[in-house]
Amino acid sequence: MPTRVPDAEFDTRLASVRDRIAETDADAGVWFGATSIEYLTGFDHIQTERPVVLAVTDDRVEVTVPRLEVERVEQNPRIDSVHHYFDYPGGAPIETAASMLSNLGVSAVVTDADGAPGVMGYEGPALSEFVDVESQSWVDRMRWAKSDVEVELVRESARWGNLAHRYLADYTEVGAHPATVSQRASMEASRAMLDTLGDEYVPRTRADGPAMAGYITGEQTALPHGHTANRRLEEGDVLVTGASANVDGYHSELERTMFLGEPSDDQRHYFELMLEAQTIAIDALGPGVSISYVDEQVWNYFEEQGVTDLAQHHVGHNIGLGGHEPPYIDRGWADHCEEEDGREAEDDAMEVGHIYTIEPGIYTDEYGYRHSDTVAVTEDGTDMLTYFPRDLESNIIDVE
Amino acid sequence: MPTRVPDAEFDTRLASVRDRIAETDADAGVWFGATSIEYLTGFDHIQTERPVVLAVTDDRVEVTVPRLEVERVEQNPRIDSVHHYFDYPGGAPIETAASMLSNLGVSAVVTDADGAPGVMGYEGPALSEFVDVESQSWVDRMRWAKSDVEVELVRESARWGNLAHRYLADYTEVGAHPATVSQRASMEASRAMLDTLGDEYVPRTRADGPAMAGYITGEQTALPHGHTANRRLEEGDVLVTGASANVDGYHSELERTMFLGEPSDDQRHYFELMLEAQTIAIDALGPGVSISYVDEQVWNYFEEQGVTDLAQHHVGHNIGLGGHEPPYIDRGWADHCEEEDGREAEDDAMEVGHIYTIEPGIYTDEYGYRHSDTVAVTEDGTDMLTYFPRDLESNIIDVE
Repeated sequence: MPTRVPDAEFDTRLASVRDRIAETDADAGVWFGATSIEYLTGFDHIQTERPVVLAVTDDRVEVTVPRLEVERVEQNPRIDSVHHYFDYPGGAPIETAASMLSNLGVSAVVTDADGAPGVMGYEGPALSEFVDVESQSWVDRMRWAKSDVEVELVRESARWGNLAHRYLADYTEVGAHPATVSQRASMEASRAMLDTLGDEYVPRTRADGPAMAGYITGEQTALPHGHTANRRLEEGDVLVTGASANVDGYHSELERTMFLGEPSDDQRHYFELMLEAQTIAIDALGPGVSISYVDEQVWNYFEEQGVTDLAQHHVGHNIGLGGHEPPYIDRGWADHCEEEDGREAEDDAMEVGHIYTIEPGIYTDEYGYRHSDTVAVTEDGTDMLTYFPRDLESNIIDVE
Repeated sequence: MPTRVPDAEFDTRLASVRDRIAETDADAGVWFGATSIEYLTGFDHIQTERPVVLAVTDDRVEVTVPRLEVERVEQNPRIDSVHHYFDYPGGAPIETAASMLSNLGVSAVVTDADGAPGVMGYEGPALSEFVDVESQSWVDRMRWAKSDVEVELVRESARWGNLAHRYLADYTEVGAHPATVSQRASMEASRAMLDTLGDEYVPRTRADGPAMAGYITGEQTALPHGHTANRRLEEGDVLVTGASANVDGYHSELERTMFLGEPSDDQRHYFELMLEAQTIAIDALGPGVSISYVDEQVWNYFEEQGVTDLAQHHVGHNIGLGGHEPPYIDRGWADHCEEEDGREAEDDAMEVGHIYTIEPGIYTDEYGYRHSDTVAVTEDGTDMLTYFPRDLESNIIDVE
């Protein structure tokens, strides 16, 4: 099972954008987005107020970085030349990048943005003050369909997320603090992951571990984006969990609705409704299937059951280098593809290599009910990358 | 010591932007940025591909949110009306926001952006397709100077960061895994914080705890943005730590260079150089002081010592709701203020309520040396919010 993106993958990605550049009148492709730069070169960095600018021409890959990234990027075998400014704003980042382009003989670019994003208070000139610019979002689109290796990295993430989730269930008991259980499960799973992978592990975290599991509890579960309450676990608590791990930048998503002690009849009812909705969505997935159709199937089921007022969001999204990525499994996706610039009606079809989270939810006034699984679309159908049991009995934690 | 932003603070903030709106030809102020929306109303949310749009008129505060945020925002006493779309993209977020504006009788707005930011793959129409727009970045600028209460929230954060950092030092020993020590310190400090604050605690984390401490070690410290290596601690390791806590959305920053066992003469030398640079910067701070001047003082010292080639970044930045905020202590800050639209030359002066991280660093080929402290500018001078000892002896961890 691979635990890092192989060199050949980056060669393919760079070749692909070079083909696209050749179809334009531009001399270079330019990227400001951290995830796109990582996708093309393997150089990952924290996006801050200090811009990073990647330039790709037909025979060169060059980058402009703040001084503090120089040693990290110099190790990268795909980057031919590293330019730097000292810091922001004194170092004049965009002027440094413009000078890099000028030295490359570039006067027209296709770029993911006309200047660096306004992250953490950054403000600075547009790139179009220095060169002719046309916009592109090639990498965002390329990232939709994952390669075989990328699918394996997400699978590896799901394995360690599963371990973290198992620890989470094991440490859960009446009287425990949900934050402490979450942090302990993350600590133990991270340690197991690090000690298992050893030198294979690509360092990806800073002052933290690569695996995590945790939950929100009780009344907070009624809010899809609720917080972990400062209240100890009690018999009868509903838990909505989440688990993942970072494998060379790739993520997976595992969520479960669990019960601390025997659920009530009401809770069983809503759990089974949610589970059936998730099963309907998973069964509907496959190559060539309309993305909107999958959300519609779940919505139809909710209508049949008379619970559309308990739904608060669509069925799911893609996952990979980003925690949420397009395409989204949303009834409006097909229309969005027809209306939005740069999208095509065909973009509503699931492709081999798409990796979806499947997470329809039901939210009553009291509690929320949502599982999330990570599922890859394959040539034959689907491949479930997460595998923690989904059924009710497996998600009841016994109370002594 | 306050642990949450009081209602009166939001009243002041909203009154301030209403005064600004009244000076324009616009009917409303509009914000898409999650931090700005939180600053004005206290409604915090995770910024995703689902846009959230706040509108402030002279007598109304209304918001457009995805369905999944409705219950969270309805609890907010400052928001008069909540509009929602089901999800993105099917729910047509910007059209929903445009309809909210239209019902408010608004045809011209001053806004922080002409549409929602392209987070997590969002793409959608500009707001200017629906109403006349002018741009403003009022909240970003208002956030520079913290109120007395905001300073106290950062101080409270620094207290729990200090505890997490003490645990980190206590758990550090030869043979321990740096990720495990980091996660254990974060877990124990979070638990102490939650149990101490009790009902005062404002839930701010999801599946995690509110306090954190951790480090990068050994050769990774030579990289300002290095990662935690998968290698157990050894005698002679240099550690660069970091600690903080989330107190109603506010942060602090504490970093220390520590040694596991007795440092070498070389290491002592670079540590003392770094410490003196930090002291120079702390001593230079104060109301009315030029921000650029503080960075220049440190640079002059590095020049005197012949170590400018070992510096990789400026002295520091502001901190508050964001981990990095302007103004930045950078030699180019004064020029930036003169050149940048919307900045004035006076913006180079430190004001009462600015909260700076002071973190000049020295990076050799082998190791990095950096402390970071969080310091508020007061009427009389400065107030050190972090207080873990800075001297060498206090940062040596004994090896048995």
